[in-house]
Amino acid sequence: MKRVGIAILGLGVVGGGAYRILTEHAEFFKKTQEVELFVQSALECNRERASALGFPQEKLASNIAEIVSDPDVQIVVEAIGGIEAAKEYVLAALHAGKTVVTSNKELYAKFSHELERAAKQHNAGLYFEASCVGGVPIIRTLLDGVQSNKVSSLMGIINGTTNYILTKMSEGMEYGQALCEAQAHGYAESDPTADVDGFDAAYKLSILASLAFHTKIPFAKVFREGIAKISLEDVADGEALGYRLKLLAIAKDTPAGVEVRVHPTFVKKEHPLASVEKNFNAVFLTGDAVGEIMLYGKGAGSLPTGSAIVSDVIFAATHVDNHYSTFKNTASAAQDVKFITDFSSAYYLRLTVDDVPGMLAKIAAVFGKQGISIVELIQRSACAGKATLVAVTHETHENAIKNSVAKFETMETVKVESVLRVAL
Amino acid sequence: MKRVGIAILGLGVVGGGAYRILTEHAEFFKKTQEVELFVQSALECNRERASALGFPQEKLASNIAEIVSDPDVQIVVEAIGGIEAAKEYVLAALHAGKTVVTSNKELYAKFSHELERAAKQHNAGLYFEASCVGGVPIIRTLLDGVQSNKVSSLMGIINGTTNYILTKMSEGMEYGQALCEAQAHGYAESDPTADVDGFDAAYKLSILASLAFHTKIPFAKVFREGIAKISLEDVADGEALGYRLKLLAIAKDTPAGVEVRVHPTFVKKEHPLASVEKNFNAVFLTGDAVGEIMLYGKGAGSLPTGSAIVSDVIFAATHVDNHYSTFKNTASAAQDVKFITDFSSAYYLRLTVDDVPGMLAKIAAVFGKQGISIVELIQRSACAGKATLVAVTHETHENAIKNSVAKFETMETVKVESVLRVAL
Repeated sequence: MKRVGIAILGLGVVGGGAYRILTEHAEFFKKTQEVELFVQSALECNRERASALGFPQEKLASNIAEIVSDPDVQIVVEAIGGIEAAKEYVLAALHAGKTVVTSNKELYAKFSHELERAAKQHNAGLYFEASCVGGVPIIRTLLDGVQSNKVSSLMGIINGTTNYILTKMSEGMEYGQALCEAQAHGYAESDPTADVDGFDAAYKLSILASLAFHTKIPFAKVFREGIAKISLEDVADGEALGYRLKLLAIAKDTPAGVEVRVHPTFVKKEHPLASVEKNFNAVFLTGDAVGEIMLYGKGAGSLPTGSAIVSDVIFAATHVDNHYSTFKNTASAAQDVKFITDFSSAYYLRLTVDDVPGMLAKIAAVFGKQGISIVELIQRSACAGKATLVAVTHETHENAIKNSVAKFETMETVKVESVLRVAL
Repeated sequence: MKRVGIAILGLGVVGGGAYRILTEHAEFFKKTQEVELFVQSALECNRERASALGFPQEKLASNIAEIVSDPDVQIVVEAIGGIEAAKEYVLAALHAGKTVVTSNKELYAKFSHELERAAKQHNAGLYFEASCVGGVPIIRTLLDGVQSNKVSSLMGIINGTTNYILTKMSEGMEYGQALCEAQAHGYAESDPTADVDGFDAAYKLSILASLAFHTKIPFAKVFREGIAKISLEDVADGEALGYRLKLLAIAKDTPAGVEVRVHPTFVKKEHPLASVEKNFNAVFLTGDAVGEIMLYGKGAGSLPTGSAIVSDVIFAATHVDNHYSTFKNTASAAQDVKFITDFSSAYYLRLTVDDVPGMLAKIAAVFGKQGISIVELIQRSACAGKATLVAVTHETHENAIKNSVAKFETMETVKVESVLRVAL
């Protein structure tokens, strides 16, 4: 039976999960995959962490050189996270001809071109299923499940932390308390910026859209807006109108260009994405042959992410030909990709206005001048001579909304409380 | 660039879809997959059908021998359906060392052992993603996406015809009319037996459960009950109680043995499977590392099924090592697989009883004797001195329900109208 040695860089949440699966299922994999996978070594400076996992101390390497020079290591699992050390180690492994399996979305989103070049040069495998949507095989699906399709759009809930917070807010909990709960459950980091400001989702969207559209979608091209400023009032307004608020990652390939954006979005409650709750994730994609398909599951966590890593390890160990991504292996977008920033969407706006006659006509005139038509308008009184106006628009353009907001901001009688996009 | 010739057996709905994708996307595949795929020939006795598709008459082969002896054909797509001719042709192709891509669930469920043996013997590839759940990459997921997991259960809506009919019934339409509509849409055949009696779902479940559990689940071992006897009254009762009726395919691998069954099942409305409507399909599976994941999409149709075929063709054309299923390649189940027929479930029963004092106590006594406890019991008057009793049980065993029904059938005052299972 083929024997394949593995080294794990980082024995934290993700690396620890991969280690547990690899060791607990070693016999199972011999039987079902006809391959003997063994963990040859690991790089982990926190020896207590290694002990707690039951990792044999004698298998801890002192440095990356020991690992990449070990002829018994064929596959290196990178589960350190971050950029500096991770990039250096991954490149060292690839240069030594080792296949790399990584869960590092930031690294892959920013440096896939460098990594892939090194992998091809040294005929090493490079796998990154675990970088996006935990154990849900979305990358395998894009590469080997729907590659017969021209994919026109991809919409996903691809960050569990923000989805947990927004689920709690839809039940009436304030943002701050929902974030605390997410931290208590271990879904959010003590510094939640990467999640709540949409960086994490934008890294993943850059990877997924690059694969889906067979081009390069640099992370920097992803429009990004987080959830930190969402008020409970907006969430409740949306619920009353039949919408659920989600942090959606949206990528569209249209004749006019490519759109890539991460922002809070109202989704009709009947849409399959609306019922994706708490720390679950889902990706909904449309291909010209397959139509609409959706993949759903946990987007993070030790064992779900470990599942993706070990599935990649098994694939690498049982396939002789190396597998590279099908997107353009460059640092920047191809010349022929036009990015659309003035994208189409429907919008939700909440305004506080002076409660005086003629006000509605003034608001309507602003929208009318921008060619925006309104689906739904709700007025309710607010305190002290003020009224709240909630408007949901038909499909219009980002710039038309920006212009309207700019105009409202010049009017002393109007205050723009929030502007949110509504999925069409 | 690598050039790979393809022959298509059967240019009907599925073969026609594959042909369209292969020809319309030929340039796209050169660019994104670095492979030139060309349709070298086809076997189709209906020349009008070939013409309507724009298939060049000169490329129509007169018999299978022409195709399997053609050195320019590397991949044979089987889209004939049925057993006799399909089996003969597929074996002929494999014996000639051609890779086979098939959409034939009945053939694969019944003869995978023969086909796989022939494929291995002649070092040919054998792919069958299109046999299950249209373009949804469930087989790729089981083979290469969650193969790091011990899968404990798989539950699916894997027949679009019956799901369409049950969706219409949940909206109040009678079974007969819903079936007619399904036929008018082309979702159901003029002889709907294979769909409505659950054969189609049972073939697919046999394939999926064999892969999920890495053993052999023969089609004959799948417990099967169709939807032809479902009454609108049961569907409406379920809706009122918070359940939606679905034809579920269920496979469980438990310490006590394996359960495989296809039957109408009430699913809680909050369950992700409950909102899978009309001709959509979904498979919900549980793995020990990944947790719960679900794949959702159209389960049939020319282009969705064509998408699965062409994705397999691309995989075969771009991977040098051949890919076999990971289930036991035998005609029958392995000796160590124990099939459970007395499975656990909750149940829904509808009885017509004489509307006289003491009746409820008699019913309760029958359930009590079988150790069955009741979650919910609704009594309403029926016509002419009769009452309707609807009972939903806690988890119990199939045999306990059978014994209760047998007992009720000896009682002149009780008539068992229907017994349906409820997903736990």
